[in-house]
Amino acid sequence: MASNAPTASDKPVLHTYFRSSCSWRVRIALNHKQIDYTPSYVNLLKGEQKSDQYAATNPGKLLPTLEIDGNVLTQSVAILEYLEETRPQHPLLPADAAGRAHVRALVNAIACDIQPFGNLRVQQYYSTEAEQKLAWGRHWTTLGFVAVEAAIAKRGGKYCYGDSVTLADVCLFPQVYNAGRFGVDMTQFPSIVRVVENLQKLDAFVQSAPEAQPDCPPAIAAAAK
Amino acid sequence: MASNAPTASDKPVLHTYFRSSCSWRVRIALNHKQIDYTPSYVNLLKGEQKSDQYAATNPGKLLPTLEIDGNVLTQSVAILEYLEETRPQHPLLPADAAGRAHVRALVNAIACDIQPFGNLRVQQYYSTEAEQKLAWGRHWTTLGFVAVEAAIAKRGGKYCYGDSVTLADVCLFPQVYNAGRFGVDMTQFPSIVRVVENLQKLDAFVQSAPEAQPDCPPAIAAAAK
Repeated sequence: MASNAPTASDKPVLHTYFRSSCSWRVRIALNHKQIDYTPSYVNLLKGEQKSDQYAATNPGKLLPTLEIDGNVLTQSVAILEYLEETRPQHPLLPADAAGRAHVRALVNAIACDIQPFGNLRVQQYYSTEAEQKLAWGRHWTTLGFVAVEAAIAKRGGKYCYGDSVTLADVCLFPQVYNAGRFGVDMTQFPSIVRVVENLQKLDAFVQSAPEAQPDCPPAIAAAAK
Repeated sequence: MASNAPTASDKPVLHTYFRSSCSWRVRIALNHKQIDYTPSYVNLLKGEQKSDQYAATNPGKLLPTLEIDGNVLTQSVAILEYLEETRPQHPLLPADAAGRAHVRALVNAIACDIQPFGNLRVQQYYSTEAEQKLAWGRHWTTLGFVAVEAAIAKRGGKYCYGDSVTLADVCLFPQVYNAGRFGVDMTQFPSIVRVVENLQKLDAFVQSAPEAQPDCPPAIAAAAK
């Protein structure tokens, strides 16, 4: 075999956990762009992200990490931007700067104002009471979705921004799944509900769902059916 | 005057509050890129962000908002990317995709894993006890800075990423200011301290500081001297 021939190791490796919403974002983008990858499972509940081996790869001890093109990339939103720049097929950002700014505003409204408060380590630090954790997640998700709903009502179509799938949809879909776990009343957010119904028809989103991952415990996968 | 001549209204308008760290990020970038702007002050402590007038501009009721090129842009990180795309002078992102991914990972480590927990509305919801609020901010800042320190130790130079100012520095500087308010022990983070010492020599960073803003109460500005 020629030494420069592509090998299995040329495939990107995604360090992922079935229920990590930030890992899910990257799974969606990889699927949407039809990029084959090798998953490497990190069980957050067992604390495997704190192992010396994983921390050497990701000093923040967070998921996901993507090994790609000889780089070790962290932070899901930075990874999404990298994939968009280096794999422009099936684009996830609009062609114009103003459109990109609006999509990125939605991405950040989710990634900065909603997701952090539902993060497992944040929930565990906030309270030991299950109902308090849910109420905390519900509060910030509801508040954040008010802004997201307004943005989609204004510029959304079939999806968050017009009729093409963008990074906003990539971030919204896992967040609505989490909203369900927190018991958020989604009847307040008809535009978000409409977009999610359309995203549920797309393989890239459905096949990357927590219950469809090989590291999802069979009991959880069965309950979701 | 010809109707197409530039007018005062062509200047970007930044809705800002002196102590909003997300507004500070945008003030730094505007100064760094030498973009003249008109500030519009929104007093977060007085709740002015909740007024009908401001909410019509920014349904998330958050700062900053930038009115520019006929667009109304929200979310500081989305605004920074827009400025970088449309005003490429004095660039704030590296020329290569891997470098940009590393800078954006730092941006997101700050914007998603640290800043949200120090946000005024989050602090107010978390606790009514001043010391509990500080401990909460201190906890998440310290944890987040572990990842930031590791990244700067690996790839930093004079600044967060090599020897040119990037968006990572734009986000780090206000966060270290907040860390001081929370009482974070910065001796654990020698690389961050080194970078901040270098940034303190730059007009774009110093002139955008909270105490240098016209909406900073004179007593606070005086105490900072």
